[in-house]
Formats: sequence, C-alpha cells, structure tokens
Amino acid sequence: MKGTPDHPNRPPFNRPHIVVVGCGFGGLTFARSFKGDATVTIIDKQNHHLFQPLLYQVAMAGLSAPEIAEPIRSIFRKRPNVGTMMDSVESIDLERKTIQTELGGTVGYDYLVLAVGGRTSYYGNDHWADHAPGIKTLEDAMRMRRNVLTSFELAEAIDDADERKKLTTIVVVGGGATGVELAGAMSELTRIVFKRDFRRINPADARVVLVHGGDRLLEAFPEKLSASAQRQLQGIGVEVMLSTRVQDIDAEGVTLNTGERIPTHNVLWGGGIQAPSLTQTLGTELGGGGRVVVGPDLSIPSHPEAFVIGDVADCTLPDGTKAPGLAPAAMQMGKHVAKIISDELKQGVKPPAQRKAFTYWDKGTMATIGRKRAIADVGPLHFSGLFAWLAWLAIHLMLLVGFRNKIVVLVQWFYSYVTFRRGARIIIGQAEHQDEVEAAIESNKQQKLPEPAAAVE
Amino acid sequence: MKGTPDHPNRPPFNRPHIVVVGCGFGGLTFARSFKGDATVTIIDKQNHHLFQPLLYQVAMAGLSAPEIAEPIRSIFRKRPNVGTMMDSVESIDLERKTIQTELGGTVGYDYLVLAVGGRTSYYGNDHWADHAPGIKTLEDAMRMRRNVLTSFELAEAIDDADERKKLTTIVVVGGGATGVELAGAMSELTRIVFKRDFRRINPADARVVLVHGGDRLLEAFPEKLSASAQRQLQGIGVEVMLSTRVQDIDAEGVTLNTGERIPTHNVLWGGGIQAPSLTQTLGTELGGGGRVVVGPDLSIPSHPEAFVIGDVADCTLPDGTKAPGLAPAAMQMGKHVAKIISDELKQGVKPPAQRKAFTYWDKGTMATIGRKRAIADVGPLHFSGLFAWLAWLAIHLMLLVGFRNKIVVLVQWFYSYVTFRRGARIIIGQAEHQDEVEAAIESNKQQKLPEPAAAVE
Repeated sequence: MKGTPDHPNRPPFNRPHIVVVGCGFGGLTFARSFKGDATVTIIDKQNHHLFQPLLYQVAMAGLSAPEIAEPIRSIFRKRPNVGTMMDSVESIDLERKTIQTELGGTVGYDYLVLAVGGRTSYYGNDHWADHAPGIKTLEDAMRMRRNVLTSFELAEAIDDADERKKLTTIVVVGGGATGVELAGAMSELTRIVFKRDFRRINPADARVVLVHGGDRLLEAFPEKLSASAQRQLQGIGVEVMLSTRVQDIDAEGVTLNTGERIPTHNVLWGGGIQAPSLTQTLGTELGGGGRVVVGPDLSIPSHPEAFVIGDVADCTLPDGTKAPGLAPAAMQMGKHVAKIISDELKQGVKPPAQRKAFTYWDKGTMATIGRKRAIADVGPLHFSGLFAWLAWLAIHLMLLVGFRNKIVVLVQWFYSYVTFRRGARIIIGQAEHQDEVEAAIESNKQQKLPEPAAAVE
Repeated sequence: MKGTPDHPNRPPFNRPHIVVVGCGFGGLTFARSFKGDATVTIIDKQNHHLFQPLLYQVAMAGLSAPEIAEPIRSIFRKRPNVGTMMDSVESIDLERKTIQTELGGTVGYDYLVLAVGGRTSYYGNDHWADHAPGIKTLEDAMRMRRNVLTSFELAEAIDDADERKKLTTIVVVGGGATGVELAGAMSELTRIVFKRDFRRINPADARVVLVHGGDRLLEAFPEKLSASAQRQLQGIGVEVMLSTRVQDIDAEGVTLNTGERIPTHNVLWGGGIQAPSLTQTLGTELGGGGRVVVGPDLSIPSHPEAFVIGDVADCTLPDGTKAPGLAPAAMQMGKHVAKIISDELKQGVKPPAQRKAFTYWDKGTMATIGRKRAIADVGPLHFSGLFAWLAWLAIHLMLLVGFRNKIVVLVQWFYSYVTFRRGARIIIGQAEHQDEVEAAIESNKQQKLPEPAAAVE
C-alpha cells in the first residue's frame, strides 16, 4: 500500500514500511535502535513517551508532568525516516498486512511492531474506574493528584468532622509494586510534606490504608523482602491490610470482604493490568490477560513480519519461564526485534528466516517505598532500606538522563525530587468529588441553619 | 465572631482578623507586606498564586504550569499567623463585617482586603466561552495548549484537506496586550517550533489571525508603538485584521462583521475583563465593568475597614486619572493598604482615621510580541524590537525570582524559555474538539467507503 497521493508531505513509501503501534519503553527502544533503510511510522494515542516508573511521583505532586514525558515527534525530529501519528488503532488485519486507524484510515506495513502496553484492569468491575483511578497515563496521575490535593484543601476549609475524615483518608488497592509505591508516596505527601502547610487539619491524622488480597506484599520478591517492605511502609504510617479483598467501591468509600467499610473520597487503584481489546482483532492465540502468544523470536506464529513486544506479549523464554512485564524486558525486546529487522533488510532476506530466540537478561528488580526506603532483589543480593533506595535512585536517574539527555534536566529533576518540589502541588481544574463534597456541606448547612446564623455577631 | 470551638487547629481569633479575598498580585503583596500583629486569612478559589504575565507561555507550551505557580500555603508556611482557605466567597456583608463562603460558612473580619481580580468578559455572549477559551487561570492556559497541540496532531494524522485547514488555523480575538501576546506566541509555536517536528503538514501553512475591533493595536500605547507592534506581528506571519468585530463564534469557526467566515477549530479569546459578580453583593457603587468605586485610600466609602485593590478597584488617582488594571498597580495598592492597617493596629487607632491617598508610580508599560520582539513605553522613552524584548525579559525574570526566590528555578526557567522547552509540549487529557473532528472524519470515511477499501492491497 502506498501513501495517499493527495498528501504532499506524506513520507515516501518506496522503502519498506515498519509500523510501530505504541511508544512506551518497547516501541521507543525499537525505533531508537532500528537504523536500517526503511520508513518507520510510530502510532500512539498520546503525543508523548512517558517515563512510567516515575509516574507515581506526578500523582504525589513530587514531579510535574513535563519532567517525565517527552513529545514523540521531538525525540525523532532528527530522524527524517521516522514519522509520528497521534491516532488510535482500531484493528489489525494480519493477512492483508494492514492496520485500521481511527483518523488516518488504513495503513499498510511490511513489518509490524505491536507495543501497546497494558491497561488498568478492574477485574470485571469497570464501574469502579469512576471512583478509583488507576495509574497508566499522565492524565491518570494528574487526576489522582488533583483529587488528593483538593481533598486536603476542602478538609481545611470545612467544619464537618465526618466529611473531613473522609477527605483525609486514602485507600490504595493492590499490594504489588504500583500499590506499594502509591501508598508510600501518599503517606509521605500527606503526613510529612503537608505538615508544614496546613493550619487547621492535622496531617498526622491522615490515614493511608493499603488493601491487598494476597498474604504478603510484592509477591514477585523473596519473602524476606516482602516483610521488609511491609515494615518500611508501616514505619511511615501506612496501615497494611493483607488477605483482604475489595468488595465494592463507590463515591463515599470502600467495602471490604471482611464486611468493614472505610469511608473515603480517595481510592487509588494499584491493581491489575490487562492487554487492550485491540489484541482480540488479531485472531491469533491469546494468553493470560489477553496477551498475544508469540514465538521465541517474538513474532506471531505464521506471521513472521508481525512482532509483539513489551507487556502485551505472552513470551515463553528458552528456559521455560515467562518474560516479565517490566520496562527492562520491553526494552530488550525492542532491541531484539530492531536487530532482526535490520539484518533481514540488509541481507535482503524476506521473512520467514532463521532467527535468534529472545533471551531476557534479568539485571534485578526493585520496588521503592518512599524517600530512603526501598527493596532490591539483584541475583543473590537482597537488600532494603536506604541502600536499596540509593540504588533505585541512581538507576532511575541514569535511565531518565538517557531518555532526556540533558544535564540541566538532571540537576533540576534531582533538586525537585530531593526537596519535594512545591510548584507541582498546584491544583489545575476541578476534582471529581468537589461537587459532591460541596453538596454535602450545603445540605448539612441547611439542616443546622438557625445555629450559624445566631452565632454571627 | 470567633473561630469554631470544635475545630482545634483553627488559628486564634483573639487578635484582629484580616480577611484577604483573592491571592493574585494585589492580595499576595498585601499579605507579604503586612507585618502587624493580626491573624490574616487568605481565601482563594485556587490553591496557588499565579504569575499571570507568563500565563500565555503555558498556553503556547513554552513553560509548564508549575513553573509559574506556587501553592499559597507554601508561600506562607513560615508565617504562622497567615492561614489559607481554598474556598469560594459567595457574598460580603459590609454592615455585619462578615463574608459568606461556600464551604467554610460565615467568616467575620476586622479588616477586609478584596483583591479578587478580573474575569474574562465575552461582552454578553457567554456561549462563546465554549469555543473560545479566555486566559485567566492555569486551567484556561492548559485548555488552550491542549486544544492547539491536539489540532496539529490531528491535522498530521488525517487526509481531509478542509478539516486540516480548520485545524491549523488559529484566530485570536482582541488586540490588547493579551491578544497581541497570544497571537505572537501562537505564530512562533506553529510556524517556528513545529517546523522541525511535523512530517506531513507544513507548519508554514498554519494561519494565525488577530481580529481587533479598534483601528490600531494596543490602544493604551502611543500610536508609533502600536504601528511597530503590528509590523513585528506581521513579521512573524500573523494576519492582523483591524476595525473588525466578531459577530459569532461556533465549533466550526468565526463569523466577522464584514461577513467573512474563518473556518477554524482554534479560537482564543484575548478580549475584555470584568469584575466577578461578587462585587454586586456589596451594595455599594460600582463603576465600569462592575469594578468597586473606592475612595482615595482604597477603602469603600463609609466602610473604612473594607479595602478593594487590584483590577477590581475603580480608583481615581489624585491627578484625576484612573489607576490602570496592571500588576504593578495591584502590587502598589497591596503595599499601601498593608501600611495603613499596620500603622492603625500599632497606634491603636480604629478606622475611620486620617489616611494617605494612594498614588500610582508608573514605571512604564511593555507588551511582548515574541522572541526578540516587544514594545516599551517608559516615560519619554519609546522603544521596540530586540531591546524592548530584552528589557521585558529582564524585568519579568527579576519579578519571577522575587516571587520564587530560588536561583535554580531562575536557571531552569531561563533555559526552558530560551530553548523552547520541549517537555511542555505534551498533551494531557482530551481536547474539546477531538470528538467532533473524529466524527467528521468518520462521516467522510463512510461517504467514500468503497474507495479506500479498493485501495488496500
């Protein structure tokens, strides 16, 4: 398929065309690593690549959104053969080698790299999304931040003690890496950072509850580190509830399977991940959570020109284990596929060809809990606390610098991060529960109207 | 009136209570300058003070929101006698010396400083607000940015030439300082910054039109400078339409009084300012645009304990002219009132007392048009171009440093500003016209459905 002739600025299609769907760690690494002679078109719903490991920092107002995101077309401005489309892919036709987009119509490809990443999964309770934002996009993080900051501002302004309690209680659902990070960050924000800021409410009264279905946090880590993470969380005031499931979430709070009810306006979802529904249009085998089952080379069986990488790939490694849904795995997959395609184009080999199997090099995993608190599992080394946190910080700084590639940004970011940058604590727009709280206050006011009127001098 | 006894953290009211409504330049300067022995409560709808002269930079993605805003309670964290409430004031009772807030109920005061600033005025056409955002708040600026950035992303993705033209046309209404700044900034953004970023659309085809009712731009400046501003705008590709009024604005474009129709999805409102409706609850004399008529000392006639400062004050200066609606005037007013109240509290004088009249020291006015383009009117000196722009930059940097008081922020900001920081060009959330454009594309697609289907290999 060729570019539409009525569009003079469309890149030339007289070279092989590689379409990359999604520009997370996998898609970005692919496009950066691929140096062959082909036209690359990146299609993403967002106009930016997001440094997702620090997204929770935006939610806790530690970093501002532009500090962890970069417009995709800026990243590739010096690569004329890489084009960017902000568009949504509706379906993929593996037989015809075309994708159907919402705005740009039908686009043909010679190679496809599907790297769309995961979506927040509410395990079939999609209506919870209204009250319990997940954290996959910048918009999610900004929404969390806006809601929590507004809650504390409202709590400071009102006299209604029950409502104030609801506004200063935060429930985090899910005890994986995301939930643990969020709970730690929210506890630091509300109990430490806010301490100097508020006059009427006592931030130490703020309650942060982490609800987890399993019998220990961070089940992907060794037991000893799970226990350490729990102690570290409790050390900064997080209430950890294990073997506890959420039964329902509404605008006024959370109901647990123990029958307990936690009244709150702030529920944060650190729960599951699933593949987007796009994978169902492939007509190929899907694994757990809708992930696409791929061969050892990361291509879809019987479609050697179509690769799937990152969180959306269900990949069995040569040692029989599954590739984990982590940024380093997605990046290594991106590199692997870039090398395969470069080599085949250079050698003029058309797929299918003999290809190397993907192998994952596990450099270790970490989870951060708060400032000076983390756990790390690096081969035979298990460590936690300050040392693990410094390691986490060093690695993320390096990754971020590689991504933005500017020393001034590093300095600025480090400064912001270490000093709890205040500027990010501004509220833009209206929180979702503000109207509800105002209505509640209003109805309370009317119920006891004679009283305040009499109290006025 | 005393603080509610059921609220243990409420500040003590056994000292005089000063209520400041609004924390723009006027309110902030008052609270910073006032050092007397009294409890100060700042009430603002937003949780942050905004450095408004650079707000258009957020709209054009030159700066990120946290760089020009600071949470009010952070600013005053070391001043225990200054409390902050994020709340909305519904009415003011000058006789009883109380204000009615939405969340916090009735609050009494000994002194009132009303500094609520202006609101965008659509001259009675409030329905235009849906299609033509003004620029008074961070949310406004983020909305402008999101809409314009999304327009260009959509234009890059689609093949429909008419729709693409609509998406890459920007109409700015109003040729005062705000409109001129916006038009210049948008022209730089779309014609210069985007040049390196887009592959299919040609940013040089982007059209920026400035529509102004008067027969020259920036009527507050001398004629020579107006003419210079117009030439400078045209030099960066802005089409200037003088003596032209907007007759209607809808989702698809702007209709002018000349009968001309400009199809566009991007209308920015740089038009008028009016006082918020709160001033109508005072029951005192209002001047042009709902501004509160004040005496020479800036207090409301017959209410010496109630001051009005900034854009919302209709103040006749000793020389018979009106105080202008500019940041320096608001700041000077804040200082003036802080001195009056400090002195009276120190001397134990209850109002009314003999007070000095407010005088405005005009240090000159400037308007910026773009990088290296501005005009300045400083007493007998009129200059324009690079030199005016450098003066503008120096003054705003100094003001911003005074406000944030951190060298690192200065460096970072200067760097961002001079390099057209890329990070701010991320889109967060969905633009308002995205659904419309998608629907238009969809209907076009269906009309010519057989064609693209046949074109697919």
